[in-house]
Amino acid sequence: MPCEARQTAIILFYCPFVMDPFTMEKKNTNDIFHIFQPDLLRIEQALKDRFACENPFINEVCSHIIFAGGKRIRPLLTVCAARLCGRSDDAAYELSVVPEYLHAASLLHDDVVDGGVLRRGKPAAHILWGVNAVVLVGDSLYARAIEIATRFRNIPIARIIAETVALMAEGEIIQLLSSQTRRLDEKTYLDIVHRKTGALISASCAIGAHLAEAGPRRVRALTEFGRLIGTAFQMVDDVLDYAAKTEKLGKAAGTDMAEGKTTLPLAIAMERAETRDRERLMEILSSGRMTNEDLSWTRRILDQTGAIEETRKRAKAYINEACAHLVDTFSPSETREGLVTLAHFILTRTK
Amino acid sequence: MPCEARQTAIILFYCPFVMDPFTMEKKNTNDIFHIFQPDLLRIEQALKDRFACENPFINEVCSHIIFAGGKRIRPLLTVCAARLCGRSDDAAYELSVVPEYLHAASLLHDDVVDGGVLRRGKPAAHILWGVNAVVLVGDSLYARAIEIATRFRNIPIARIIAETVALMAEGEIIQLLSSQTRRLDEKTYLDIVHRKTGALISASCAIGAHLAEAGPRRVRALTEFGRLIGTAFQMVDDVLDYAAKTEKLGKAAGTDMAEGKTTLPLAIAMERAETRDRERLMEILSSGRMTNEDLSWTRRILDQTGAIEETRKRAKAYINEACAHLVDTFSPSETREGLVTLAHFILTRTK
Repeated sequence: MPCEARQTAIILFYCPFVMDPFTMEKKNTNDIFHIFQPDLLRIEQALKDRFACENPFINEVCSHIIFAGGKRIRPLLTVCAARLCGRSDDAAYELSVVPEYLHAASLLHDDVVDGGVLRRGKPAAHILWGVNAVVLVGDSLYARAIEIATRFRNIPIARIIAETVALMAEGEIIQLLSSQTRRLDEKTYLDIVHRKTGALISASCAIGAHLAEAGPRRVRALTEFGRLIGTAFQMVDDVLDYAAKTEKLGKAAGTDMAEGKTTLPLAIAMERAETRDRERLMEILSSGRMTNEDLSWTRRILDQTGAIEETRKRAKAYINEACAHLVDTFSPSETREGLVTLAHFILTRTK
Repeated sequence: MPCEARQTAIILFYCPFVMDPFTMEKKNTNDIFHIFQPDLLRIEQALKDRFACENPFINEVCSHIIFAGGKRIRPLLTVCAARLCGRSDDAAYELSVVPEYLHAASLLHDDVVDGGVLRRGKPAAHILWGVNAVVLVGDSLYARAIEIATRFRNIPIARIIAETVALMAEGEIIQLLSSQTRRLDEKTYLDIVHRKTGALISASCAIGAHLAEAGPRRVRALTEFGRLIGTAFQMVDDVLDYAAKTEKLGKAAGTDMAEGKTTLPLAIAMERAETRDRERLMEILSSGRMTNEDLSWTRRILDQTGAIEETRKRAKAYINEACAHLVDTFSPSETREGLVTLAHFILTRTK
């Protein structure tokens, strides 16, 4: 990899600014959640108000995962999508809890399946309360979220949510099976990413549009926007799994590889690496563990082959395509620009 | 226990006839599924047609649990409830798959949680495919079932289904927590039974009524009918766990006690047994295993204290109350009598 390209990769990774492709303004992504502060406060309140299960144990496990410092990107998308389509009353905030609860439920089950021990810097729920209880609390949280969605008496919202939960589970299954064979082509990777991450981020936008009873063109634009930024979100996640520090990430770096999961950065590195390096990557992937030395070496190979840079480049293309859908469909507004900024934040986030 | 009472218990258990409290006719419960043969054939077809997931692995795991010889009581209730309220087209059969899929999903997760190794005479799914895959396939099956329910564009049906899944998971959680403390009062037992079994059997009836757009009185009668027979169903299940033979049951007899679960028969026996016997029952319950000798001895105590007979008596009272709801609300018809017969079959079933 030429020195210049490597520098670009580093800049892409560490730069706290992002160039908005439409306004051509530099945006400070550290400020991103400042823009949405009033929305975030109302979302936080709705998350507390809506989650009222009468069983104290279920409440405890759910609170552990729901109030552990998530970024609230999904509820923010629901609220912004509804506002972009003309609805900004309490209902949008109330509905916005649904994707966040579903996300939390999926994290509970995913940690059981992956055997993850840290989540958002705290011990994973199954470490604290055992696998059995966490499987059941996850079921209950999934079901409560769907039940809240049905309270809006809006059939498209209920259908999208149920369909999304099925896609999320199916995405995890396909990933689990592909990690057993240690093989992953890019089509399968994108299919997994769409199901396990893109579908819920897309649904977060789509249900906001449906709540506002938007027409099909606007629903489609927001659904696509969500799908594309969701795909980019997962690609950046897969980069951070190698590149970020454990304390920043809130879970061990290199976890994907230790769990035998091939993600896009690794797939690109394997394709581009020399035979000896490819063999060592396969060895680490198959070993079921990741020493500090393995991690440093893998990071070096990912850097040398330009795999990190290539993955970020693809994520950026998805973000640009996503924003084009918004710009083509909606007139300029503070909310539209907010969504564009949010989309770009996905590229520059460091955890 | 006087000899006469013990004989009654034996008759209640083995008698293949049941006295219909309304028609005062003896019904041969072996014939019960003969009455419903045309319905059962259409339900079986709907179960095959509706379950079309594009992932072959998910299909394989789901088929293992769905087509393993279940009695199809839940879909039968949906079909009969819809017909009783005037609707008997294909939609009733299509909707009837929803409670059966939810039941199957709950069995997948329950076996993981309980560590059950046999289900319907076959190895439990997690033994064959591993805990991780089965947790995810269970999620996917839950979600697909809810998604099918939303296709009927009927908000009450979607809400009942989502609410029921939450209740089922919560029932399992309460049971799990109470098995850890080894204490169970009757109120908690009935609460668990309602959530983990009664809620879905009740929902099976209620969604049939909603599909037929029945009025509130009919919906209420069928919901109550389902709740009461569901409670009785679980009580008989808890009796069979001690009384039935492993090969008939399709899973090991005495499993509840081996898993530390106190159910009504055991709670009654503990209350009535002499101190020494109560202490031994507690010891077996806490040991986490059940030898053949333990099982024989426990069966003897359950018999001597009249615990089996008392549980069956209570189940019978629930069945009678359930049937009274039907008789008070619906005029006589073949379907109404069929439901009464089905309710009584629950008492006499031997697996």
